[in-house]
Amino acid sequence: MALRTRDPQELFDLACSGDRGALARLLSMVERSDEESRAVSRIAYPKSGKAYTVGLTGAPGAGKSTLTAATIGVLRKREIEVAILAIDPSSPFTGGAILGDRVRMQDFATDPGVFIRSMATRGHLGGLSLATPEAIRVLDAVGRQWVLVETVGVGQVEVEIAGKADTTVVVVNPGWGDAVQANKAGLMEIADIFVINKSDRKGTEETRRDIEQMLDMSDIAHDDWRPPVVATVASDGTGVEELWETILRHREHMETTGKLEARRKFRLGEELREIVARRLYQRAREICTGPRWDQLQAEVLERHIDPWTAADEMLASVQA
Amino acid sequence: MALRTRDPQELFDLACSGDRGALARLLSMVERSDEESRAVSRIAYPKSGKAYTVGLTGAPGAGKSTLTAATIGVLRKREIEVAILAIDPSSPFTGGAILGDRVRMQDFATDPGVFIRSMATRGHLGGLSLATPEAIRVLDAVGRQWVLVETVGVGQVEVEIAGKADTTVVVVNPGWGDAVQANKAGLMEIADIFVINKSDRKGTEETRRDIEQMLDMSDIAHDDWRPPVVATVASDGTGVEELWETILRHREHMETTGKLEARRKFRLGEELREIVARRLYQRAREICTGPRWDQLQAEVLERHIDPWTAADEMLASVQA
Repeated sequence: MALRTRDPQELFDLACSGDRGALARLLSMVERSDEESRAVSRIAYPKSGKAYTVGLTGAPGAGKSTLTAATIGVLRKREIEVAILAIDPSSPFTGGAILGDRVRMQDFATDPGVFIRSMATRGHLGGLSLATPEAIRVLDAVGRQWVLVETVGVGQVEVEIAGKADTTVVVVNPGWGDAVQANKAGLMEIADIFVINKSDRKGTEETRRDIEQMLDMSDIAHDDWRPPVVATVASDGTGVEELWETILRHREHMETTGKLEARRKFRLGEELREIVARRLYQRAREICTGPRWDQLQAEVLERHIDPWTAADEMLASVQA
Repeated sequence: MALRTRDPQELFDLACSGDRGALARLLSMVERSDEESRAVSRIAYPKSGKAYTVGLTGAPGAGKSTLTAATIGVLRKREIEVAILAIDPSSPFTGGAILGDRVRMQDFATDPGVFIRSMATRGHLGGLSLATPEAIRVLDAVGRQWVLVETVGVGQVEVEIAGKADTTVVVVNPGWGDAVQANKAGLMEIADIFVINKSDRKGTEETRRDIEQMLDMSDIAHDDWRPPVVATVASDGTGVEELWETILRHREHMETTGKLEARRKFRLGEELREIVARRLYQRAREICTGPRWDQLQAEVLERHIDPWTAADEMLASVQA
């Protein structure tokens, strides 16, 4: 029976009772527009706050998806329900059939305890940074205890999103320069746990040393949680139990030290500011139209004034 | 003699006379803050508008930097001056010594006709999207005829930046799925030219067919410029002359059809809107503080209200 309703409350109730189609539709609403996202938020938000989020990030090819799949396996053995948000153009999770068989997604296709959803990286400024926390809250509100967010570890927005999880796992590979590259991409700063995946290849110890050295040189080392380094071979499951234990250990650390609460509070403040900014942005779109706008644009094009001055004049003309 | 001045006009005059240190300092100002960026813009903007920009993008490992280096070689043979902006954490251009020897940067280190600059992908929302066009204009204003912008082809902001060049080159590799992945990352839509780099490996024809098929299925094919596909081996220079000829052909197409003017006008409008939004964003930061803000944050944390409602109340309380 095809799902007919588009009412967010009905969809939400259906999703809570395990209807995956209803859940998928709610998430589409979150992605589609601010208005729909807001309607969903009004229902989902009060019920959220129980899920724990794990961000998993690293360069394309690092094996994030295989590691995610292996982690799902570990969770399912413990009968823990899990949802996965893949925000990663290189992820087989986002790709459908063509690359899908690289990961044993079939293992989870019929498992009601696993829900996988991909989100598009494309879109307007602020699109992903607002849609992602909203999508997480929907999954949270319908009862998923764990939400894994897989993002590609390159790109300003994507790295920011990965850093906003309760626990952030950064995946690198053995080999010269891989840790250096992660550092350049801004991943060192957001890592709570490092994984050296494909650790059956040579170079694992060198990469471990690189990471430890970078930690020594950074402020992070002086914190009371020094990011541990876990070696895995995701494709055969090696180290994945240890990774899971490490995640649990970090979670406990976050909870007992009060850091989890502080991090979530900080994150929420950031999100609120972004929503305020987004509202103002929409206002800017409304402002930036009409004859005065056309005239200013023409003046900038003819290089009579610079863009910053034009923007100021536009804002002034609106407020006057 | 160390450069002492921090006055943008003096720095600009020095940069115009070929002082690379002065140029580097101007670009640091653009990166650092809106205020400094604006001071530089006021001087550089009126002199800009002559340079042609080429965006070069693709997944990490596609060989963008090697291709960029090879392209610089082709330009220098023709005595064309060129500037490179590398916005790519995986680029050896951004990395300094460790990965630098992968590309023969030494060839250009002493060549006054080549200026290479890396820009950080990290930073606040809108950081890169505003700093990049500004940096391009500085390079333009001091007399560089060609500006190559290398960005990594993953990440919302990075793909957007690549798509804002006068000509955008998308680099893929031979092999199953590479073109599909580029499509998922949003690269098909922004490509004016495709390059299959490392085309001495097998799978080049399959990748070419993939690209052509995707073009057939998209709207792009019905345009009067169907993105050509150039096969290169950047490491030995194969196909790089052809790529350069193709870029020139696209440029001519853009110029003679009036598309260049239209694209630049559109781009400038987008940038103006972003500056307006950025101003409003700063205002949001100012708004989001004080007792009312703390109270609203607390109510959201306790889940009495949702974030969107809180944002609206914040905005309303400011406007009242």
